[in-house]
Amino acid sequence: MKHLIIFLTISLFISSTHAAEYDSLPSWNEGATKDSIINFVDAITDKNSPDFVPKAERIATFDNDGCLWSEKPIYFQLYFAMDRIKTLAPKHPEWKTQQPFKAVLENDFKTLISSGKKGILELVMASHAGMTTEECENIVLEWLTTAKHPRFNRPYTDLVYQPMLELLTYLRANGFKTYIVSGGGIEFMRPWTEKIYGIPPEQVVGSSIKTKFEIRNGKPVIVRLPEIDFIDDKAGKPIGIHKHIGRRPIAAFGNSDGDLQMLQWATSGKEKRFALYVHHTDEIREWAYDRKSHVGRLDKGLEEAKKNGWTVVDMKKDWKVIYPFEKK
Amino acid sequence: MKHLIIFLTISLFISSTHAAEYDSLPSWNEGATKDSIINFVDAITDKNSPDFVPKAERIATFDNDGCLWSEKPIYFQLYFAMDRIKTLAPKHPEWKTQQPFKAVLENDFKTLISSGKKGILELVMASHAGMTTEECENIVLEWLTTAKHPRFNRPYTDLVYQPMLELLTYLRANGFKTYIVSGGGIEFMRPWTEKIYGIPPEQVVGSSIKTKFEIRNGKPVIVRLPEIDFIDDKAGKPIGIHKHIGRRPIAAFGNSDGDLQMLQWATSGKEKRFALYVHHTDEIREWAYDRKSHVGRLDKGLEEAKKNGWTVVDMKKDWKVIYPFEKK
Repeated sequence: MKHLIIFLTISLFISSTHAAEYDSLPSWNEGATKDSIINFVDAITDKNSPDFVPKAERIATFDNDGCLWSEKPIYFQLYFAMDRIKTLAPKHPEWKTQQPFKAVLENDFKTLISSGKKGILELVMASHAGMTTEECENIVLEWLTTAKHPRFNRPYTDLVYQPMLELLTYLRANGFKTYIVSGGGIEFMRPWTEKIYGIPPEQVVGSSIKTKFEIRNGKPVIVRLPEIDFIDDKAGKPIGIHKHIGRRPIAAFGNSDGDLQMLQWATSGKEKRFALYVHHTDEIREWAYDRKSHVGRLDKGLEEAKKNGWTVVDMKKDWKVIYPFEKK
Repeated sequence: MKHLIIFLTISLFISSTHAAEYDSLPSWNEGATKDSIINFVDAITDKNSPDFVPKAERIATFDNDGCLWSEKPIYFQLYFAMDRIKTLAPKHPEWKTQQPFKAVLENDFKTLISSGKKGILELVMASHAGMTTEECENIVLEWLTTAKHPRFNRPYTDLVYQPMLELLTYLRANGFKTYIVSGGGIEFMRPWTEKIYGIPPEQVVGSSIKTKFEIRNGKPVIVRLPEIDFIDDKAGKPIGIHKHIGRRPIAAFGNSDGDLQMLQWATSGKEKRFALYVHHTDEIREWAYDRKSHVGRLDKGLEEAKKNGWTVVDMKKDWKVIYPFEKK
């Protein structure tokens, strides 16, 4: 009887694996984009292929903002920082006249956006300095359960891309370790990436502030300091990858010029490599922007993609649904 | 026939797993030390135990020098740095009078040791600045194939501790992710830790120098800069853990006061925790040193271990063999 159960379990496992392989990317329309992904994965996982890559080397890195979830009208972490500043404002009358706090309190998005990812990090830094890393984690998690995106009136974590979730799962099923490599704050992402993307905290690379270890009330804690440690954007992305992972990815996924160096780094190795840009072309279901956008500009990257034959996702054309909640 | 083979494979797998569980730590003598390890692993892997810890949280961090391999008479990385300096010396006549190079060229160990891990990092930095990370990796690997330890006349990677190799394997078989968290240079360790310890580069945390990304001869490279980025020692260890892993280990292993904060950090979580110090007590098979040693001093740590009930390995008493080559 026990043997029979093992048999059945194995058969079920084999058939479900096959079924999954049949269409692991159901939200991707058939066509060249989807084919390029599948052809790459087939080639590097086929032991008889000259392009075979052993499992340990199957590292895939993903940008977060605009690649795994939306980034419009402003980076979601900026909403988080603004909400924090507003919560703390009564205790800081000086913020009324002091930038960038003034811009937050006046909802002056233009000033805030122009300060870039570094500006956001500085805001988060100012509003969380002296806090322990655990306290900070709790604040992020609480914010995510209550805050809602202004356009969709849904929690921000609802605005992840269904096709990219499928892609993450598909790659992991094929032996990949999937990483986030984002300009966003590492401590802003880590509390929820495992639940939302299946990416554990140790596989999240991001921008960071300095911290220090101390014994507080007899208990060891790590305390956030008001000093930037690392900006994981542009040329910082290959550096962040080298620092955290120590090997070159064989596949990299981004959506903006901030990801260009990561894609260059990933594709410059010896083995077969894959690079993909998500191009925001869907002004109805999501947003359409590229060369002129302040948030998530994709300009040089589009040229490089053309020149190097990287895959460019046309969101409007290639994706059946954008968000999980659109699925029937 | 196919089913029969699957059956046999499963049976073999099950019995070998059982056999392995019977004594996964054959180089450890029976007694309280070995029991403490096994009892901890049993408790946190037993689904019916109140101490059960889900797999994702089973993070174990290991110091390297003096915990996974020897560190006497001086840190092995210091030999590496000295060999590099000597190789490069003909091109640098100024080193004859300039510290710390002078100390290297005169084999002045006393001066070198007193400069600590930071001093080693500075030496490595000076001798590898401007090099790409790939070039540096090749130099490390080449050195390891040729350099020999002065006492044992063997490659340095022969001087890893057999009981600790078994412990790493045992923990991984029980769902742990094993990490190195060392004061040594991250780029000195990563090229070989996977082969020697089964620990992949992305699970190595260490001291580091700054790097920059650039396109060199049309090829993206990461170049080493002559500037220290991070010292992963003492209070730096919990910081390095937080930075790279983003969750608190449930078990930590060290051998010196430089590991104390890591052990404090690991054991201060809510779940059942484990901390272990390797105490160097075997002057015949290895070295005996603790409170007075310049390299790998264990003084405050011994007190803390006693106070907190941490496991202290008595190498002489607890380990049947020290190095793999002692096995019959």
